[in-house]
Parts: sequence; C-alpha cells; structure tokens
Amino acid sequence: MAKQDDLFKNVISHAKEYGFIFPSSEIYDGLSAVYDYAQNGVELKKNIRDYWWKSMVQMHENIVGIDAAIFMHPTTWKASGHVDAFNDPLIDNKDSKKRYRADVLIEDYAEKLNQKAQKEIEKAKGRFGEAFDEAQFVATNERVKGYLDQKNAILQRMAKGLDSGDLADVKALIEELEIACPDSGSKNWTEVRQFNLMFGTKLGASADTAMDLYLRPETAQGIFVNFLNVQKTGRMKIPFGIAQTGKAFRNEIVARQFIFRMREFEQMEMQFFVKPGEEMKYYEYWKETRLKWHLSLGLGKENYRFHDHEKLAHYANAAADIEFNFPFGFKELEGIHSRTDFDLKAHEEYSGKKMQYFDTEENKNYTPYVVETSVGLDRMFLAVFSNSLKEETLEDGSTRTVLRLPSVLAPTKAAVLPLIKRDGLPELAKEIIEDLKWDFNVAYDEKDAVGRRYRRQDALGTPFCITVDHQTLEDKTVTIRHRDSMQQDRVAISELRGIISNEVSMRNWLMKMK
Amino acid sequence: MAKQDDLFKNVISHAKEYGFIFPSSEIYDGLSAVYDYAQNGVELKKNIRDYWWKSMVQMHENIVGIDAAIFMHPTTWKASGHVDAFNDPLIDNKDSKKRYRADVLIEDYAEKLNQKAQKEIEKAKGRFGEAFDEAQFVATNERVKGYLDQKNAILQRMAKGLDSGDLADVKALIEELEIACPDSGSKNWTEVRQFNLMFGTKLGASADTAMDLYLRPETAQGIFVNFLNVQKTGRMKIPFGIAQTGKAFRNEIVARQFIFRMREFEQMEMQFFVKPGEEMKYYEYWKETRLKWHLSLGLGKENYRFHDHEKLAHYANAAADIEFNFPFGFKELEGIHSRTDFDLKAHEEYSGKKMQYFDTEENKNYTPYVVETSVGLDRMFLAVFSNSLKEETLEDGSTRTVLRLPSVLAPTKAAVLPLIKRDGLPELAKEIIEDLKWDFNVAYDEKDAVGRRYRRQDALGTPFCITVDHQTLEDKTVTIRHRDSMQQDRVAISELRGIISNEVSMRNWLMKMK
Repeated sequence: MAKQDDLFKNVISHAKEYGFIFPSSEIYDGLSAVYDYAQNGVELKKNIRDYWWKSMVQMHENIVGIDAAIFMHPTTWKASGHVDAFNDPLIDNKDSKKRYRADVLIEDYAEKLNQKAQKEIEKAKGRFGEAFDEAQFVATNERVKGYLDQKNAILQRMAKGLDSGDLADVKALIEELEIACPDSGSKNWTEVRQFNLMFGTKLGASADTAMDLYLRPETAQGIFVNFLNVQKTGRMKIPFGIAQTGKAFRNEIVARQFIFRMREFEQMEMQFFVKPGEEMKYYEYWKETRLKWHLSLGLGKENYRFHDHEKLAHYANAAADIEFNFPFGFKELEGIHSRTDFDLKAHEEYSGKKMQYFDTEENKNYTPYVVETSVGLDRMFLAVFSNSLKEETLEDGSTRTVLRLPSVLAPTKAAVLPLIKRDGLPELAKEIIEDLKWDFNVAYDEKDAVGRRYRRQDALGTPFCITVDHQTLEDKTVTIRHRDSMQQDRVAISELRGIISNEVSMRNWLMKMK
Repeated sequence: MAKQDDLFKNVISHAKEYGFIFPSSEIYDGLSAVYDYAQNGVELKKNIRDYWWKSMVQMHENIVGIDAAIFMHPTTWKASGHVDAFNDPLIDNKDSKKRYRADVLIEDYAEKLNQKAQKEIEKAKGRFGEAFDEAQFVATNERVKGYLDQKNAILQRMAKGLDSGDLADVKALIEELEIACPDSGSKNWTEVRQFNLMFGTKLGASADTAMDLYLRPETAQGIFVNFLNVQKTGRMKIPFGIAQTGKAFRNEIVARQFIFRMREFEQMEMQFFVKPGEEMKYYEYWKETRLKWHLSLGLGKENYRFHDHEKLAHYANAAADIEFNFPFGFKELEGIHSRTDFDLKAHEEYSGKKMQYFDTEENKNYTPYVVETSVGLDRMFLAVFSNSLKEETLEDGSTRTVLRLPSVLAPTKAAVLPLIKRDGLPELAKEIIEDLKWDFNVAYDEKDAVGRRYRRQDALGTPFCITVDHQTLEDKTVTIRHRDSMQQDRVAISELRGIISNEVSMRNWLMKMK
C-alpha cells in the first residue's frame, strides 16, 4: 500500500513538473478537484480523444458524431431521472460542521469489519503447519464469520434505507454503530438528506423569464434528444451509433484521487441504437471491441479486467465496467451498458414527440434499444500516464525516469538536438524541424549536454531524439535514438519522416485491434 | 436587405436539413441561443479547430497549448474586472414585463434618426439634374444635419451615463425621447440597472464551504493564471505564446443571429507574451498573420476587412477586429488586442504571486506585455458555412445547391458510390472504403440514381465522388468527380489516396499562408 501511495505521488508530481497537469487556478491556491491540462497534457489528451474518435467514428460507417451543448432544456433532466434520483445522502456533524456522505461513513465502518476479518485469516494462515489446535481454528472461524455477517447486515440495511427513501433509518444506523466524525470524534449528527449532484445556473436576466438550468452531468442525453434529427437527416439505418466527446459536471461531495474523480470532466460516449431483442448481441460485441481498443495501446493485458454489475441501474438490463489497474488499484475506466429503451421512452413521454424508428425491412415502427460505451477521457489520461511512468535501472547501474507513452499518443513525436550550439548545427537542426513540423509535433532543444537532453525527452515521453552533429554537415545523416530501447541508429535525414510516421501513425496502432 | 435575409434563412435551413446544426433540445422546443452541432457539423467544427491548432501551436516552436478548466477560482474574475464591469444595462417595462438592454433601446432610436437622414439624402439625390432649387436643398441639408446632430448627442449622452455610472440619466434619456416598449407600446419603465453577464453556480454542498463560481466568460484568463507554470515547466523564452480552445459562457440578454452570438460558445485564443515596448511590433505581426490564415481558406479577400478600435477597453493600448462579410453584413470574426501587462499585473495584485519573467539576455525581471488573438470557433463555422453555400445555374439551365467548403475542412472527403446495387459493385465500393477510411472520412451511398447522389454530396460539401461501375470490375479504375468543377476523370483505384490527400492535406492548405 505504501509503495502504491509513493507511485501515485510520483505520478502527480511528474505531471506537474513536466507540464502535463497543473492544479486549477494554482496562484489562488487552487480549486478543489479541478485541474488544468498543461502544455504537454493538452497534446496527450487531444491525442487520446482523436484516437478514440478515429476508431469509433471515422472507422465505422454506421457511427456518426455530434457535439451537443452543455446547456440543455431542463426537462431533459427530469426525463432522464437526474432531477429526482441523481443524489448523494449527506450528513453534517453539528460540532465540527463538516459534511460527509452518509453511505461513505457506513461503508468505511463496514470496511473496517472486513479488515478485521482479513487480519484474523492472515493470522490463522501463519499457524498452518503448527501443531493442530482445533479449538483455536474454530474460534478464529467464529470471529471471522461474526465480522463478515455484521458487515453484510450493515450494508444491506443501508441499501434498504437508501433505496426506500428511509433516511431516518440510515441515520439510526450511524448512531447505533456509534460512528464518529473522522475530523472531531463527535457523534452529534444532523439528519441525513439527499443532495442533488447537478450544478445549477440561471439562463436569462428577467425574473419572469429566467430558466433554471443544469450543467449536464453526462453527455449521453445530448445524444438521445438528438436521436430523431440525426437519424432522419443522416438517413441512418439501425443498427447505428452516435458518438460524442465533451465536458460533464458533477458536484461531488468528496472528490479525490487527482484527475480520477473531478467535478468537471470529459466523457467519450457512444450510444448504439439496435432492434429490441438484439441488445445482448451488441452488448457483448461492444464489450469485446472496447477492450480491444484499450489493448491496442499496449499498456498490458494484465492491467484490465471486466467487472459485471450485479446491481443494475434503473435504466439497464446489463452492465459491465472495464476496470484498469490504476496506482490505487483496479477501478472503473469505461462502462458498457445495455440501457434498453428507457431513455428514448422517457423523452417520448416528457416531450410528447414520438422517438421511434421505422424499420423498412420489418415494415414497422419501434423504439430502439440502446447499448452505450462510456469512457472518461481524464481517466484514460491517468491510465496511460501512470502506467507509462517508469524508473529504470540501466546496465551501467544508473537510473532513468522514462515516460513510456504509446508513441501514437506522445505529445511530441521527436526532439531535434544540435550536438553543440555552433558550427551551423543549430541552423541545420532547425531546417529539419521546418520540414518535419508539417506532419508531427517536433521540439528543439539545445541546452545542456546531449545525455541530459535525452533524459529530459525520456521524461516527457518523446519517442525519438534526433541528434545533428558535424558528420551531418558532410553526409546529411543524423543519429536517431529510440526512447524505449535507447538504441541509436545513423540514418539519412530523408528517412526521418518515414521512420517517425511508421512508429506513430494511428493506422498502425489501430491495426492492432484486428 | 431582403436578399440577405433570404440567404441567411437558407443558411439556417440548409444547416439543419443536411445535419450540420440543430437547435438545442429541439424536442423540448429548444433553448434560446443554444445550438448543437450535428453529425456533419461536428466534423466541420473539429476540422476548423484542428486547422487553427496546427497553424498556431504545431507550426510555431515558441507557442504551446493548454486546456484549462471552465471552473476557475472566483478571484480570477475579480482580478480580470469581470465581476465589477462585465455588465449590460437593463430596463424593464412595467406593463409588458419585458426586459431590454437600455443601450440597445437608445441605439435603435438613434439608428432611426440616422435612417431618416439617409432617406432625405436619397430623396435629394433623386432631384439632382432637375431645375436647381437652392431653397429646397438648403432645407434638406438642415433636416439631415438636424437628425445627425440629434443622433450624435443622444449616443454621447448615453455613453457618458454608462461610463460614469449615472444610470438615472440613461433612464431620463429614454423618457425624454419617449421610447416605448417595442412589444406593448407602453412608456412605463423601471430604473436602469447593471446586470452581470457571467453565469453563476455553486461548488460544494455545504452551506459553510460552498463557493460561488462563475462559468468562464472568456478562455483568456485560464492562460494568464497558468503563465508562470507554463513558462517554468516548459522553459519558455520570451517572446512566446500560449494557445487554448474551449467553451465560454455569457448570459446575453438578446442573443440572436443563429450561432453568431450564443450563450455557450467556443473560443480559439492565443496570448503572446513579449518584452514591454515590443508589443506594437507583435501586434502588427499577428494582425497580418491571422489575416493570412483566414485568407488561406480561399473564401475571398473581399470578404475580410480590418476594423481598428477607436475606443479601447480598459486593458488595451491597441485593438483591431478582423471583420467578415456574414449574411447580415460585416461583423467581428476575430479580435487582435494588445492587452499590455494589465492581466498579469492584476493577478499579481490579487494573488500576491509575482507574475514576472526573468530575461537572461537583459539580466532583469519584468512583467511581460501581451498580444492576444481571439477567434470565435462558432463564428468561423458560420463564416465558412455561409460563404460556401451556393445556388448555381448550370450550362443546361438546371440548378444545383453546392456547399463549396474548403476541402481541407469538409466533413466527408469522398463518397464512394456503386453505380447499381448488384453485380458485386456494392462490395467493391466497400472494399475501396475499407482502404481509404484509415486516412479520410469516407461515406458510402447506394440509394437513388447516381446524379441525385452527386447532388446530395454537393449539398454536404463532399469534395470527391468516386463511382464504381462494371468497368471497375475489369480494370480497377473508377470515375472520380470533383465537387466544384463537376469534372469527371477515370483513374486507377490505386491513385485515389494520392489524389484525395493532395487536395485535402492541411500541409498544402497552410502552405498558402506563405
């Protein structure tokens, strides 16, 4: 656990030091759970977005994109269920004035019981092989069972209270368990009440005409309300998809883990409209296809796993997460949900507009079913970035920090370095840049010894360093150094475009999905 | 004027019919001054953004990008002046309950005086060449002078009232001029008061800790607050620029003209940091460079003009607009502003952090001056889209609607059409698509006669149609048809990639800036 914490701290400080992510408004001491993408981060983020868009939209004849506004008509959120049900149960401590999620307080308590049980098990494991003492094992087993039974009873009672709206019982549970404020130790609690996670604002200036708006808490609804317009003007035939990337906002009570859970974040979503009854086929198809997309980036198959939801959201008949091995363990990276016809039916009810599709083959109207793929762009960033950051010990015993980003996503594809700052080498390096920059992000670096510059580019994740030396003046060749292998080759300047292109082209990376 | 209105109506209906722009949340009867980009619009918008980014960031060694959050620390907007001064003067009619911008009411009144003067002049012009009647001309001249003097006096008094905060006099002016509510005819007005255009929201759930936030009204401040972090971690040397694209929000009282003035819009901004005293040199440089960028798209030199600001904003010592000939006349498309050190100094004052640069050549610290280029992405979209939409009469007397988009920006680069729906032609067409789609957005279309499909692709702005026929089965050649010239050539399938690439590559288009 300590090692994981250290790794995560390294990730955060490397992200700042090398210009990937800054805390938002840092000169004003920051804004909680909001971050800015810095000069290298913006390119990495853009490359991830483009990689997704190319794979989902450009490569699929039957998927198109849209870009709906963040502001939507407020009835949208009534229909989607967000106004009524997008809540967190909050409780305040009267003494410390601190606010908590009641469910998190209880879950933390339950987790402690679980840890006690695990500790007993570990202890018992250590005694295997010793002289057998039945009484001791029976006693251990009793204690373990006791902890786990209590844990399960607590979680079940909490779930029942939250689901049925019996918030008084949730508070009673907190009191019975004698849960104290982590900050002050006080057990003096207010009632539990539901807090909606949507950010509100007001559109228009007049008291009469001002409209209460929400900042969208998910991009999906922008697709559903446009379903008819896209289908008709785009002459789309089922099955077809609508994809979108864009910002969403959630007023999280406890936002943490760097860019993993932010109050302002970006989603990459695709809603796939299918004939009712065919949704499970496409659900399975998209589970596999999306996993292949992740695997194409080469972060390691062992770092992904599916987590099938046992408890389904009110709109879903099947749901799974693709979890990734983040520095703090396996957590959700992407969700694949079979949303049924819940959303289109709800919008039909609230708008009075028929949200149906006329199937020319079947010669009938129906409300399509929907399979959704939804990945957090910021989480993808964190997955790629944290997985790529390595401290390596080299053959000579020295160490290097290298950001082994998939080269297709690297912010800068090549750095061009004049060996020394005179004899026309800088000018020649800049000539090479002038030519390459039409096709790639290329950097120039002339400061410090060349070895140090290599290390700097390693830490930035730049796949290639191109060194211009005196031989270059004579025969138009340069040294090209590969970030990962540190291998150096002598190649002609005229070969550079081909070498870089072959390594970083989206085409070659996406081919790996096949 | 009537013709312009028709053109504009055509633009709006074409944008909807062909899947470029939909009214937001249309199934709920829309949301005023908010629009969604549809399946073709999202690609055109993305291509414009990429064209800007490539030209501004990738092609400039000394410009880097960032992507700051929409949420910023609220003190940012105190420092920038937006909390105190980003206002519109509003007045309500007590009878109709309608709300207006007081300055717009007065400007509309002044404009009517101007029109009266112009009418007199037109009438007088018609009398030239008749028997000379001195008295009549003198009388006309008196009337014209009277109208214009009154107009100017009104506008000056209004400006004085607004600048000095004497809103009572602005109201007095409205009453003296007997301006009536356009809706009800009533002259029963409330006081005038300032209304801030920023959208507000609340971060965090607790009454104690909730923070009043604003949705950023401009992206520029995200660059200024990150100036130190970018300069240091990116080891940037002055002069250098920081570029950003992103959403901004303004609670406009009267938002209109389609996507020209929206409440949620996207900016593409670059702040260029220079040594104090050198700002005018770079101001001129960026005026010229940005105009060249616009001209590279080939929409016609005659459709752009500079408008130098006579009245400068409080932060600027020089400012100009690049105006474009929109369907409703010449209006601002991009602003180039010499912002002095106003912003960095203001953030220094409010944050207590030194916002300075250490110039190693001069061996001293200073606060850089800033030259800003700021273009509205939605306005660029409208400029490109409206300028490209043409009704053409062909040689045979028939007409066609064609969207002559710059091919580098076209949503779909080529449509592949099987001449008929059998004999293996559809399969062959799809094989061609399978190959081309790695590099370009390509569409398939098999419905209707081929001439009708050509027209459909013309209306979508697709630069190339590729027709697969029986000859293709024999010799692997296809017909490629050019959208603008309608010329058709017979070429080998293997040549397609090169032909399309040559026509649509950003490199070739950006070369035109040279």
